[in-house]
Amino acid sequence: MSLRHGKEFLMIPGPTNVPEEVLRAMHRPAVDIYEGPLLDTTAYCLERLKHVFRTQGKTYIYAANGHGAWDAALCNTLKRGDKILVLESGRFALGWGEAAEVAGLQAEILPGSWDRSVEPARLEERLRQDIKNEISAILVVQVDTASGVWNDIAALRKAIDAAGHPALFMVDTIASLGCMPFEMDAWGVDVALTGSQKGLMCPPGLSFVAASPKADKAHESANLRTNYTDWTFRQGPEHYQKYCGTPPEHLLYAFQKAMELLFAEGLEKAWHRHALLAEATRRAVGAWSEGGVVDFNISEPHARSNSVTVVRLESDHASDLRQFTKEVCGVTIGGTIGEISGKGIRIAHMGHVNAVMLLGTLSAIELGLEKLSIPHGKGGVQAAIDYLSEAL
Amino acid sequence: MSLRHGKEFLMIPGPTNVPEEVLRAMHRPAVDIYEGPLLDTTAYCLERLKHVFRTQGKTYIYAANGHGAWDAALCNTLKRGDKILVLESGRFALGWGEAAEVAGLQAEILPGSWDRSVEPARLEERLRQDIKNEISAILVVQVDTASGVWNDIAALRKAIDAAGHPALFMVDTIASLGCMPFEMDAWGVDVALTGSQKGLMCPPGLSFVAASPKADKAHESANLRTNYTDWTFRQGPEHYQKYCGTPPEHLLYAFQKAMELLFAEGLEKAWHRHALLAEATRRAVGAWSEGGVVDFNISEPHARSNSVTVVRLESDHASDLRQFTKEVCGVTIGGTIGEISGKGIRIAHMGHVNAVMLLGTLSAIELGLEKLSIPHGKGGVQAAIDYLSEAL
Amino acid sequence: MSLRHGKEFLMIPGPTNVPEEVLRAMHRPAVDIYEGPLLDTTAYCLERLKHVFRTQGKTYIYAANGHGAWDAALCNTLKRGDKILVLESGRFALGWGEAAEVAGLQAEILPGSWDRSVEPARLEERLRQDIKNEISAILVVQVDTASGVWNDIAALRKAIDAAGHPALFMVDTIASLGCMPFEMDAWGVDVALTGSQKGLMCPPGLSFVAASPKADKAHESANLRTNYTDWTFRQGPEHYQKYCGTPPEHLLYAFQKAMELLFAEGLEKAWHRHALLAEATRRAVGAWSEGGVVDFNISEPHARSNSVTVVRLESDHASDLRQFTKEVCGVTIGGTIGEISGKGIRIAHMGHVNAVMLLGTLSAIELGLEKLSIPHGKGGVQAAIDYLSEAL
Amino acid sequence: MSLRHGKEFLMIPGPTNVPEEVLRAMHRPAVDIYEGPLLDTTAYCLERLKHVFRTQGKTYIYAANGHGAWDAALCNTLKRGDKILVLESGRFALGWGEAAEVAGLQAEILPGSWDRSVEPARLEERLRQDIKNEISAILVVQVDTASGVWNDIAALRKAIDAAGHPALFMVDTIASLGCMPFEMDAWGVDVALTGSQKGLMCPPGLSFVAASPKADKAHESANLRTNYTDWTFRQGPEHYQKYCGTPPEHLLYAFQKAMELLFAEGLEKAWHRHALLAEATRRAVGAWSEGGVVDFNISEPHARSNSVTVVRLESDHASDLRQFTKEVCGVTIGGTIGEISGKGIRIAHMGHVNAVMLLGTLSAIELGLEKLSIPHGKGGVQAAIDYLSEAL
Repeated sequence: MSLRHGKEFLMIPGPTNVPEEVLRAMHRPAVDIYEGPLLDTTAYCLERLKHVFRTQGKTYIYAANGHGAWDAALCNTLKRGDKILVLESGRFALGWGEAAEVAGLQAEILPGSWDRSVEPARLEERLRQDIKNEISAILVVQVDTASGVWNDIAALRKAIDAAGHPALFMVDTIASLGCMPFEMDAWGVDVALTGSQKGLMCPPGLSFVAASPKADKAHESANLRTNYTDWTFRQGPEHYQKYCGTPPEHLLYAFQKAMELLFAEGLEKAWHRHALLAEATRRAVGAWSEGGVVDFNISEPHARSNSVTVVRLESDHASDLRQFTKEVCGVTIGGTIGEISGKGIRIAHMGHVNAVMLLGTLSAIELGLEKLSIPHGKGGVQAAIDYLSEAL
Repeated sequence: MSLRHGKEFLMIPGPTNVPEEVLRAMHRPAVDIYEGPLLDTTAYCLERLKHVFRTQGKTYIYAANGHGAWDAALCNTLKRGDKILVLESGRFALGWGEAAEVAGLQAEILPGSWDRSVEPARLEERLRQDIKNEISAILVVQVDTASGVWNDIAALRKAIDAAGHPALFMVDTIASLGCMPFEMDAWGVDVALTGSQKGLMCPPGLSFVAASPKADKAHESANLRTNYTDWTFRQGPEHYQKYCGTPPEHLLYAFQKAMELLFAEGLEKAWHRHALLAEATRRAVGAWSEGGVVDFNISEPHARSNSVTVVRLESDHASDLRQFTKEVCGVTIGGTIGEISGKGIRIAHMGHVNAVMLLGTLSAIELGLEKLSIPHGKGGVQAAIDYLSEAL
Repeated sequence: MSLRHGKEFLMIPGPTNVPEEVLRAMHRPAVDIYEGPLLDTTAYCLERLKHVFRTQGKTYIYAANGHGAWDAALCNTLKRGDKILVLESGRFALGWGEAAEVAGLQAEILPGSWDRSVEPARLEERLRQDIKNEISAILVVQVDTASGVWNDIAALRKAIDAAGHPALFMVDTIASLGCMPFEMDAWGVDVALTGSQKGLMCPPGLSFVAASPKADKAHESANLRTNYTDWTFRQGPEHYQKYCGTPPEHLLYAFQKAMELLFAEGLEKAWHRHALLAEATRRAVGAWSEGGVVDFNISEPHARSNSVTVVRLESDHASDLRQFTKEVCGVTIGGTIGEISGKGIRIAHMGHVNAVMLLGTLSAIELGLEKLSIPHGKGGVQAAIDYLSEAL
Repeated sequence: MSLRHGKEFLMIPGPTNVPEEVLRAMHRPAVDIYEGPLLDTTAYCLERLKHVFRTQGKTYIYAANGHGAWDAALCNTLKRGDKILVLESGRFALGWGEAAEVAGLQAEILPGSWDRSVEPARLEERLRQDIKNEISAILVVQVDTASGVWNDIAALRKAIDAAGHPALFMVDTIASLGCMPFEMDAWGVDVALTGSQKGLMCPPGLSFVAASPKADKAHESANLRTNYTDWTFRQGPEHYQKYCGTPPEHLLYAFQKAMELLFAEGLEKAWHRHALLAEATRRAVGAWSEGGVVDFNISEPHARSNSVTVVRLESDHASDLRQFTKEVCGVTIGGTIGEISGKGIRIAHMGHVNAVMLLGTLSAIELGLEKLSIPHGKGGVQAAIDYLSEAL
């Protein structure tokens, strides 16, 4: 028997639930790209990106996904053969490093693990060894959607400073921007990038890059530039140059509306909302974990992200549970990927998510645990409710 | 602090959550009303109404709300001055009776109460007294959205038959059709009516009437007809006659899509879904009621409807709780109306509602009870989950 | 070979082309009907109706089509057996008179014809004969969509005044409001009504009635009231009373947006736009008529409406031409109905219509006349362009 | 006085009018990217691209605009320092050549002019001179939206073959695919690319590349690859690899629907429709040109494209005319760009365009010419109508 027929949710770590207002904003005719209101939309979006990245630097909009933004960040600032240091803590920094190799860079991995955040001390240590400053850039993700880890960007910056290293500091905020505090300028990040489809509540298809003055300087001598991603061209006076060609109008309408929604709520308020919903989720998982089968993927409590909670579970259980919540309850939760593929679930609480959606999702999971006889401590939802009652 | 920013729900007893597919179906240009695909839409809708009312009788579509359908039922079948018997069990049968008075009928109320269903024995008794068969029609609602009561239509029919009374039996299924079993022909209902905006998952603005052969017969001598509601005209050969003028095209597209969704799920399956979600709600309310403040409005357990649960609560509590679930959690629950106005809440679980929406709503209420220090037994959501785990 | 694949238009006299903004306005979730923003929408709509009808009188919104508004106008103001005078000039005043008969009124027709407007002198003459003031109401349409006639409401009012007759003056503006000047108060109209789906650019399903103080007075003693249409109830303090039940929310969103569009353009500017487009159409028809087969239905030039031009054409020609413009060119033009059914076409230029749509439609018709070898004077589109070049 | 208030059109050479069905297809929630219906959408789109390019080769979908596809074509097949030959005939082949320079290629221009197509004989001559086969690739556009030229791809292929040259033949069909015949395999094209927002009737944001076996072979040794555009990665087994990251779901829904519409009409029928509408446009321009001020940009009649007609006009006239058609009539026509910037207009007739839209646009232009006293021969629309009457 299915109880699925109602509004279905997508509680996976991207793409996320797109607000109705955002979808509605896309449902309109194409407009002229040389004059008229689209130019205001562009100006608004570029400006809002500064606020959301917390930077005075330049911002860029790409018709591309996050992987396209990876390329844009690297190709605009580096030279062929440059060495970069990739800070491992799950899947996505490694992926970015692989992209760098394709582009003609040398990627060195600072080894990490899937269940922990990057240790600032190890970064500092490695940089101190780099006496010749051969490392041109340091790549890290703020949140890894595969492992669920949160890396402490401010602390990593301090480690770089402690080592006195001049490398560009590049941060992928795809799974965190809009969900958790990020302070590009205050934290000394040189290049930050993100995508439209997670905390920013839009359909996928846009990605964004922000560059500090130091990155601008590096750009001048970069020799990996491609026409489509080139910052210099995109700083040109014509509107179409901002996009190197035809602007992706409908996705821009969507993004404009999403920014209006985000700043109507307030960016700090959105961070706070994510913090509360994430902790409620962790309370539920904590209760369930008492059954001995369910557990957090990230072993360090402080390093569990506020945008996604990755939960370890035996393989069949994970698959059965995800099928149950989707087909019986109406909510899709994420499966695990990469080296923990099939060994857990990912509960996303990022973007356009409120208390009723989150508590409904946790309830569906607890119902599934019970119905499917997966060993678990009871009272997960109760623990989430109790926590919120105190924290609100 | 608000956790509202996400998909907001409307868990009030009408209008209900409109499926995205239904909204999308309305988002299209107007079309010709004399020829082309709209004629197929009309044929489809009239036919599906037979299935949803479970009748071989004629069906009618009105651009009107449920009150318009009340008039249509009465004016097409009765004569000025006719006496009707109104079976009280909340607010809406009385309202229908008031409409009858405006139309020039005499309405007699069979007294009932807001916390109980209509008793078949009392109906039978009253009809036995009507030796001259002065009562032309009997009016009842299957579910009253104000009190939350469910009336046993089959049992009432038996009472009429036991009394051997010839009155037309008219049933308002506005708050029940698509949610709970209704068998127009099998139960001997002469006129049934409903609206688009509750179990049928559409925007408000359409209402529907079905007529048995006995009602058709009565129609022949009815003298309260109005042009707009007249069945005879609407049975004419031209397409526009089906609507007595311009068809409400966009609402028809919506209704067509909603019927496709309902029958894709299966009508019986939809009834079963409502039964499970309603009982889960009652389990939660039952747990909360142990605090001594929360209670069911309907005292008879068997007469609590599967489309809405009406809960008694002190006045300030009710108002505070509704405000909390809406502004902090993102779900609007109903207030009480009529003689219990301000004295409770109405939790709707009708139409396009799945497990995650319902459990999220119950969680939000329980969070509100806790946060607002409203005395209540804990574990309401847990009880709902436990019930569903067994019942699924 | 078809050249149809593009945006298709509906140039029929209702429903008309719905602006994208209006369709988009409907594409949203249902909301609470007891509190919140819907109450503002209602207030806005009722107020805007005063502006569009040009009245200080009360306005009413019905979930119903124009035929429902006919009933509402009659039932709220008249008594059983009252005599009404119907001013014939096509199909629709007669239809309203038939509705009156169903409601229990006596309808007398002031005979007219399908090719002329109502003559004020004949009205005055008939009223002078009514020495006992037996006529309670006079019914007329401002524009008849079947014949294409425009009646001079101000002149008819003068005729009534000249006869010193006290009857209520009721005007159906379904096919004219928003398209041509209408001045309810200045012209002494007692009851005016219209629908949503023509000049007001909305989907069908709503109709509107405005009442003068004299009509309000008549309402007090009216005995044909029905619950659903009753003005007294709808003037009650509760929001739901404005609609006698659940408000048709999505259609209200649409209407609100349409009013915003209309008043952003400016009501007088919209009238002017219709005047220019209508005359351009008449210039084209005038040119085509030189072939001896095409002709205006309305013989009096001054009485041709600015919302629809009805053109006479032999039966096969009309059918072939309509099929050609639709299937080859992408524009649906209207067929004729009633006593001239099949004998012509109706070119609507009402509501959301601009120069490119109108000229494209005229071009498609001229292409059809040529391709189908229907005898016609050439240069119709050229004449339209020449006219607009001078008139703009 | 403005007659603008109605459906506004965008008759510019991209983005074009997006069908309502396509916009509606995007108006839906995001879905899972790892499993479920999105995988079918991807398979469908990749397969349809083969049909629309007329190839058995591999097809690729990029979240990017056409400039992104330029990079993808070059970087996947060439080596740093390779020489390419750019066939000039307007703006866009030159732009592609500039992109090639950024990527590290040497671009040689085969000079052409803005008013003529590329001459096959000159290409053959140049290739015969390239005795060492230093030219690795030949770049050309089928239609240049800036000049309005159409290049004869089949004839250019023959010239290459006549010279016996092994260079890759790369064709930009951004402004022609779906509008004019293109036969990738039959004509021996090695890499073809296009965008979503012109003949393919979608919002901008997607671009497409197709590769022949010869291009696949070249890919193996290409050393300009970037991670995001790399064909090898995109041929991987996982769904996300097809997009190198998150698929642009909503644009894919749009593209799927657009392909359904295109193939429902029939690709050849769509070509034929464009041919007829384009010739009708040229007939109108021909008539107007008799005034001595208006003229075709392309001097060779056979080389005027069927997707856009570029018209020369003095600077003030062009600007005034475009403003008039937009603000008075409701249709936006294109301005000229590049070296003829400000010196004319571009009338697009590409994608979702039917007879009524095209004839309405031509009428608006003729009205503008007349109203603004721009010298012109009269009867342009008449000439278009006369032509279509014969040609249909």
